[in-house]
Amino acid sequence: MKLLANNGKMINDTASLWQCCEIVFDLLSLGITSPDSNEFWCIFSLGDNMKKVPAFARDKDKIAVRFMPQSSGEWQWSFYSADSDNAKFSGSFKCTGPEHGNHGPVSVHDKYHFAYADGSIYRPFGTTSYGWIHQPEAITRQTLQSLKDSPFNKIRMCVLPHYSKWSEEHTEFFPFIKQGDSWDYSSFDYRYFDRLDELVLSLQKLGVEADLILFHPYSDKWAFDKMPAEADDRYVEYVTRRYAAYSNVWWSLANEYDLLKEKTLADWDRFGIIIAAEDPYGHLCSNHNYIEFYDYSLEEMTHCCIQDGLAVSENGRAVMLRNAWHKPVIYDEVCYEGNFDARWGDLDDIELTHRFWEGIAGGTYVGHGEVCAAKGHSDDEVWTGIGGKLRGSSKNRIAFLRELLEAGPECGLEPIDRWWYTNIVGVPGKYYLFYFGRTSPGEIPFHFPARDLDLVDGTKFRADIIDTLDMQIIPVPGEFSSCKRNNYEYGDENGRTISLPEKPYLALRIEVIQ
Amino acid sequence: MKLLANNGKMINDTASLWQCCEIVFDLLSLGITSPDSNEFWCIFSLGDNMKKVPAFARDKDKIAVRFMPQSSGEWQWSFYSADSDNAKFSGSFKCTGPEHGNHGPVSVHDKYHFAYADGSIYRPFGTTSYGWIHQPEAITRQTLQSLKDSPFNKIRMCVLPHYSKWSEEHTEFFPFIKQGDSWDYSSFDYRYFDRLDELVLSLQKLGVEADLILFHPYSDKWAFDKMPAEADDRYVEYVTRRYAAYSNVWWSLANEYDLLKEKTLADWDRFGIIIAAEDPYGHLCSNHNYIEFYDYSLEEMTHCCIQDGLAVSENGRAVMLRNAWHKPVIYDEVCYEGNFDARWGDLDDIELTHRFWEGIAGGTYVGHGEVCAAKGHSDDEVWTGIGGKLRGSSKNRIAFLRELLEAGPECGLEPIDRWWYTNIVGVPGKYYLFYFGRTSPGEIPFHFPARDLDLVDGTKFRADIIDTLDMQIIPVPGEFSSCKRNNYEYGDENGRTISLPEKPYLALRIEVIQ
Repeated sequence: MKLLANNGKMINDTASLWQCCEIVFDLLSLGITSPDSNEFWCIFSLGDNMKKVPAFARDKDKIAVRFMPQSSGEWQWSFYSADSDNAKFSGSFKCTGPEHGNHGPVSVHDKYHFAYADGSIYRPFGTTSYGWIHQPEAITRQTLQSLKDSPFNKIRMCVLPHYSKWSEEHTEFFPFIKQGDSWDYSSFDYRYFDRLDELVLSLQKLGVEADLILFHPYSDKWAFDKMPAEADDRYVEYVTRRYAAYSNVWWSLANEYDLLKEKTLADWDRFGIIIAAEDPYGHLCSNHNYIEFYDYSLEEMTHCCIQDGLAVSENGRAVMLRNAWHKPVIYDEVCYEGNFDARWGDLDDIELTHRFWEGIAGGTYVGHGEVCAAKGHSDDEVWTGIGGKLRGSSKNRIAFLRELLEAGPECGLEPIDRWWYTNIVGVPGKYYLFYFGRTSPGEIPFHFPARDLDLVDGTKFRADIIDTLDMQIIPVPGEFSSCKRNNYEYGDENGRTISLPEKPYLALRIEVIQ
Repeated sequence: MKLLANNGKMINDTASLWQCCEIVFDLLSLGITSPDSNEFWCIFSLGDNMKKVPAFARDKDKIAVRFMPQSSGEWQWSFYSADSDNAKFSGSFKCTGPEHGNHGPVSVHDKYHFAYADGSIYRPFGTTSYGWIHQPEAITRQTLQSLKDSPFNKIRMCVLPHYSKWSEEHTEFFPFIKQGDSWDYSSFDYRYFDRLDELVLSLQKLGVEADLILFHPYSDKWAFDKMPAEADDRYVEYVTRRYAAYSNVWWSLANEYDLLKEKTLADWDRFGIIIAAEDPYGHLCSNHNYIEFYDYSLEEMTHCCIQDGLAVSENGRAVMLRNAWHKPVIYDEVCYEGNFDARWGDLDDIELTHRFWEGIAGGTYVGHGEVCAAKGHSDDEVWTGIGGKLRGSSKNRIAFLRELLEAGPECGLEPIDRWWYTNIVGVPGKYYLFYFGRTSPGEIPFHFPARDLDLVDGTKFRADIIDTLDMQIIPVPGEFSSCKRNNYEYGDENGRTISLPEKPYLALRIEVIQ
């Protein structure tokens, strides 16, 4: 975070691209006593690029405007209040190139995939820890370390506190101030959000996207799932204004929205509309279901954030939903690696890894969750509940998958001829990734689909067998020479085959030799 | 069709429920020369129930209004023209109960299923014959006979002529009059639509729904896929006004809409809006894709009419799309039974039957198509092209499935605990249909899912093994006595098992003993 100006006085006159910048005013200096931030806003401009950014209550005696510059150069800012057409304060700052490691916000790319603002591809390898930000300092530090050591580059996390017996004992701050026995929804506890500021920034430095969950049904006696609509809307507006300037923020209207029984579909639609209105940068926005998928055809939904225990368990299912809404699909919840009795929390590391592969083989993405309870600890103290240590081992094989994709083409992998070859993604004529899942096909002919492809016979390819469990890449000796077999398929002109080991969970990579 | 009145004079003063009724006027009697039907309409009323029904050009010297009464009793009608607030003609008729076999129009029922207006369940078992209405009389008669002898209760059929070499030689009439070398899109050839009238009525008498395809890409030199937007809209309006009063009509904006390259998504959306505006009865309406699914979240889309060669080929896929739009799904095209070289036309009867079963096991429905070319005949002369004789044999096993469902509960079968048991549909606690597809599970414990179910232990069930290939129902001797095994499953209290024969394509039916 970069403090640009305080009470109209410039503090810093430079910022870097996609950095969260702040301009702060004491209420006193504005001649007011209560922070009705709706009365104040800034206009930021650079050439034709102009953004109006509304203020929010930064503390009990402060308001602030946060801004994320999206282009380099000399930005002008002017601060306005509703009672005058003239700017109350103004200034300028120079936006330089990005800080090392900040690629800018992620948005939809190539219809079904994602990219950073600097154009580099972003492949979501997300995990889930609902309550990690509400834990004691030592645990949040451990969570950040775990993320650093993991393949995960996105985390689903609740903005509102996530109830459990453990959380009840350990939660220090709440988003609202208590008046007697009940929350005063009009009084934010700024300490709560100060902490979230810090943690979102820590994630940004790690290259991890913060998929902020605005509502969730795990509130129990805290009852944040049952606030009145007016309080909901004020809260959504507040969070959007406060966090939109962080480059690594995504919006998730809810976790398991259809379990928040007090809310109607119209409420969810309204939250999406508020976010779209208050976020000047159009960060990614979705909604996560329990059973009933949300309506991803809504304009405000940039992608599909889906819970489905079925979608990536077997071959050929993942792609079905991708085609439903013509938007990127992240199967953000597909059951968890863990040792719970509940069937949603008992996957072993092999099964969760398999599900990641099935997602990729369908042109989609998959999210991780972990409920490995340690001996002598409660079921509340697991990664997906509170963060801390990642005890499962799917993360290693998921890291192997991520590296494999990073070594491939700099784009999303698309299903090739999806009705007929349900396990092949890639880039026609250049790169193919086959995933064989639970099957052991043994010896197979060298082949790939002919759809949308007009390749000169004799084009040379190499192949590697991928052992997804042992995390090995086994080159197939020699080259293959393509030849069109029929309308549907290319093969090798000498009829060469590939012998796969007699085991499941294998993949095959075929790459053109340039 | 019932002619109620001619030139304002009542011809019949009774009609039956859901019957297509017509009121006709000579242009001469209206004092006009050209049939600008937009200037004329009827108001039909019975108590609070009032419908405004616009006229259409019935012949070069006639306009007509068609009406389908949706309740019994004494209906009043008044005929208006735009040049006066006063009715030009009026009359009344008595609507009696329905004719034998007419259950009224089909609409969506129980969210994912269908029912007739009289409340009885309608389970779509559709087939496809694009060009059957454009064939010589002997072939259309044979088509109707084939339908009568088949399990099919819906047919997808093109309103506009379906081009093939065969059709070029055999098509007698076209929807428009030719002026020199080109169609005059403002002049309908009424003989073409008179014939369609007859055939839609013939289908109604057979209990077959006419799924009218408004546009298709198989037009070749006739170029009806490339009409100007104004002609498209006039045609859609005309067809809707002329056919909406038939109880058995469904609207399908297109076959393979995404292959009509001249049209944009906005065109399709507009056609849906025209139909909704012009159809006073809200007949079922959908759109059929080649590769890209249409946006079924649109209000005008009552259900999903999907082509997908993948969706019902293996277990657990069909249900995915059902949950995408929360509307009924009919996989109307899943490749055809046939002997074509093309991979979309080479399913054997076993595979197509299997796909019907997979659809039902996912809480969805499947459509039939057949391209069995006979020796000495061209590929054009197949059922799905021109109708005639059904040469394939999947129809027999599909009939067996239909009968099996008709012997079950009078409602749609719902997936039971869909993430975990991908092959069980039914009614919790009462009726379960398992489909094992390509697997041969051998001996299995008696079981069914516990989700949403609170059943007294000791409830008695019987079971039948269904051989979907040999079309046999093999009762399992004795009874089963339910007992809750865990949160997820009921079993038999004596641990009884069921031995399935060692073969694929089996199903299992479990029914409570009342």
